[in-house]
Amino acid sequence: MSKRQMIIGMHLGNGYGSQPGAWRMPGTDPRSYASFDAKVRQAQAAERGKLQFLFLPDGPSQMVDIEEEAPNFNLDVMLTLAAVARETSRIGLIATGSTTFNEPYNLARQFKALDVMSHGRAGWNAVTSSGEDVAANYGQRIPPSAHRYGRAHEMIQLVQALWGSWGREAWLHNHNTGQFAKADQIAPINMGGKYVASRGPLYIPPSEQGQPVIVHAGGSPNAHDLAGPYASAAIGASFTIEDARAQRAAFREAAERAGRDPDEIKYFPGLMTTIARDRRSALDRRIAMTERLFPQRVAYLQRMLGIRLDPDRLDAPLSDKQLNAAHPSPRDPRSAQALKIAREGWSLRDVLAHGVIDYHPVIAGPAIEAADHMQEWFKAGAADGFWISPDIYEDGIDAFVDGVIPVLQERGLFHHDYEGITLRDHLGAPTQYGLDPRISG
Amino acid sequence: MSKRQMIIGMHLGNGYGSQPGAWRMPGTDPRSYASFDAKVRQAQAAERGKLQFLFLPDGPSQMVDIEEEAPNFNLDVMLTLAAVARETSRIGLIATGSTTFNEPYNLARQFKALDVMSHGRAGWNAVTSSGEDVAANYGQRIPPSAHRYGRAHEMIQLVQALWGSWGREAWLHNHNTGQFAKADQIAPINMGGKYVASRGPLYIPPSEQGQPVIVHAGGSPNAHDLAGPYASAAIGASFTIEDARAQRAAFREAAERAGRDPDEIKYFPGLMTTIARDRRSALDRRIAMTERLFPQRVAYLQRMLGIRLDPDRLDAPLSDKQLNAAHPSPRDPRSAQALKIAREGWSLRDVLAHGVIDYHPVIAGPAIEAADHMQEWFKAGAADGFWISPDIYEDGIDAFVDGVIPVLQERGLFHHDYEGITLRDHLGAPTQYGLDPRISG
Ligand SMILES: Cc1cc2nc3c(=O)[nH]c(=O)nc-3n(C[C@H](O)[C@H](O)[C@H](O)COP(=O)(O)O)c2cc1C
Ligand SMILES: Cc1cc2nc3c(=O)[nH]c(=O)nc-3n(C[C@H](O)[C@H](O)[C@H](O)COP(=O)(O)O)c2cc1C
Repeated sequence: MSKRQMIIGMHLGNGYGSQPGAWRMPGTDPRSYASFDAKVRQAQAAERGKLQFLFLPDGPSQMVDIEEEAPNFNLDVMLTLAAVARETSRIGLIATGSTTFNEPYNLARQFKALDVMSHGRAGWNAVTSSGEDVAANYGQRIPPSAHRYGRAHEMIQLVQALWGSWGREAWLHNHNTGQFAKADQIAPINMGGKYVASRGPLYIPPSEQGQPVIVHAGGSPNAHDLAGPYASAAIGASFTIEDARAQRAAFREAAERAGRDPDEIKYFPGLMTTIARDRRSALDRRIAMTERLFPQRVAYLQRMLGIRLDPDRLDAPLSDKQLNAAHPSPRDPRSAQALKIAREGWSLRDVLAHGVIDYHPVIAGPAIEAADHMQEWFKAGAADGFWISPDIYEDGIDAFVDGVIPVLQERGLFHHDYEGITLRDHLGAPTQYGLDPRISG
Repeated sequence: MSKRQMIIGMHLGNGYGSQPGAWRMPGTDPRSYASFDAKVRQAQAAERGKLQFLFLPDGPSQMVDIEEEAPNFNLDVMLTLAAVARETSRIGLIATGSTTFNEPYNLARQFKALDVMSHGRAGWNAVTSSGEDVAANYGQRIPPSAHRYGRAHEMIQLVQALWGSWGREAWLHNHNTGQFAKADQIAPINMGGKYVASRGPLYIPPSEQGQPVIVHAGGSPNAHDLAGPYASAAIGASFTIEDARAQRAAFREAAERAGRDPDEIKYFPGLMTTIARDRRSALDRRIAMTERLFPQRVAYLQRMLGIRLDPDRLDAPLSDKQLNAAHPSPRDPRSAQALKIAREGWSLRDVLAHGVIDYHPVIAGPAIEAADHMQEWFKAGAADGFWISPDIYEDGIDAFVDGVIPVLQERGLFHHDYEGITLRDHLGAPTQYGLDPRISG
């Protein structure tokens, strides 16, 4: 009987790390944003830890203050993964590609080429893109949700049909007989719907995993409905174990509604990590990176806790009066955790340094705390694994790989090495080539 | 006074070579079509010869008989060049990208990312795509010429504007001051025309050459008009020295009409090579690869020469009667050369083996014959250099690099090493960042 183990991915982003100040820390090459060497090095570090996949979000857009912060995304996710594909051998490669702002033929072609290039390690995170910031780059406005998701369903079907249009056994390349391929197994698809159409075929033979894996990132009912019929993994963001359990269940139910086994879709909430010798060192590391943002975060924390806080008194813990008056905002799922940390008596600066206002749960402390958190969520049925965002890529990846991974391995929660070679193997995703016959378009 | 020298590029295609039978020759890996290792190896061989660029045509389409022939193109030109960029250091990387079937923002982003990744070696061959076969992949029909070329002009302008939208000096990444970039030098472009629009900016800093070089491939008046204002190189197909001289002049005149120095646009006709010890070995090599096609080529040769030919008598030379009756077709520029070869007394098979019906002039013989041909065209003002299609990539590249290149170098016609590091350096193209201020959209 094989024991269920967790699957771990890593966010591969702008070259610096998940914290806005990561780019200016000592030991970080400040040119990493434009450095493919840096991305490859970071991917290799994750592969050293036997992580199952890299996850590359994508806009393309920019919502940071570029005077002081690096853009959030990769220069180009496909070219980054092409470099990584050539210079790693096992880790899965999941890139985000918009279903709204790409031609299906172009997207199908690049993802399948990446899959061949990486010997079966590619995944497509199919998202509809929801920011006007992104739409403007295409001279457009964001279409209404029904349009976006209608197109997304058609896109995924069409792209998978193109992937299957070069028959799995069609390529003979027989030196002796001179037969290159079986022409009758490489055929047009002639598919067209309300939003997209293509004739095909796509002239790309299968990879070691057949075709790329479909992934989705989101948490709305739309996300569940899109992931349900197609996705092998859902990349999520949950702040509490309860929310993660509900999200995971929603994705599993959506898969079942589509006629699939719920185990075919894995749910991965995010986790941000600052792994250090002890809590104090971890907090100091985060303070060095993000203190610049603390004044605005104090203002935000006030609203989360429903009390007045003084941005000039970062050194002091919250007073009993403040702690008694506080009531966590039901509108922000991070509020309870923020109050819990404040009640432990940390200074206001340290409360913020715990990452109580960040995009995902934050572990700032020794490796064992990250392992405990992951174990708890995993055992509670809140996750099939996690996607990790280290604070700084360079030494933050190493700290995770050398600190947290061995603990999880000792506990039997994480594999000691890659068992398979493809992303499908790593995710336990079933074989699929072309359309899934169980799903109708 | 620096002597004018030729610039040489190489076609990097399907992994096998320019001849349809290349895939099944001994020494060829029959899986090269899907092998990025093969493409990288071929690119490295060209770089060993100090060639200035690789040229990757692109459909994406398929017009071959896949039962017996490999597709003509790369799985994906950008991913191929990403691999090549990481594993070569000097050779220029020119990929074809359709102005009709791409979103300008996506195309701008990938080419500039490739330029950064390759440290300033990227070029964009901007073509409008003219085949219904291509359009069908996008669920479309080919738009009328005026639409295609109207859009092409807008695309090139918009893409260049996006390239320039991250100011050349905007990126400071200053660890000490904490200033990442000058926000006021990274600005939206807000451009929109009749066909395409984008707000931008594109968040990619300059490469070592600023931004990719614009190239065009074609020979029609449309091609001249599109290349004139923008292109640093025109990739052509000319069968005679007269035609090449006329083509080169037409591109130069178009550049002048646009207010540029005619030397800013280089003209490169194609050349197909089978380099061997002697003519006989070269012909035998080509026969082994292409004899399968000779019956249909005999039929075609009949029309070129205006005489009856017997496909069952491939061993015999043309009779005096046939040679006297022959009159080269004015509709096919290859006819005169075909008759010249036939008059030399070669068997019908050998006449065809000379490549008299191929996409470009063919050199089948010792290295010195290729060098002589290139020298003659170059000295006659018919070319600024050439793009070479070796018959088989593997040993056909080596034969060119080790045979022809040293002869050209001895004659002072080709550089002994790369002088610069960027594609702009290799082409002698002037600096440009963003739009060319001399050209209005
Ligand atoms: C963890 C996570 C990661 C996401 N990554 C991306 C991304 O990389 N690119 C993107 O356009 N949207 C991304 N999204 C956004 C969702 O795909 C979705 O567009 C968003 O939740 C808005 O929902 P709507 O499309 O129903 O309006 C992500 C969402 C989550 C939860
Ligand atoms: C040497 C050469 C290479 C070409 N390469 C490509 C190519 O890779 N992709 C493409 O779509 N068209 C290519 N073309 C076609 C031209 O761009 C152009 O579409 C064609 O000559 C038809 O002209 P039109 O657009 O005026 O109808 C090439 C043309 C020449 C002469």
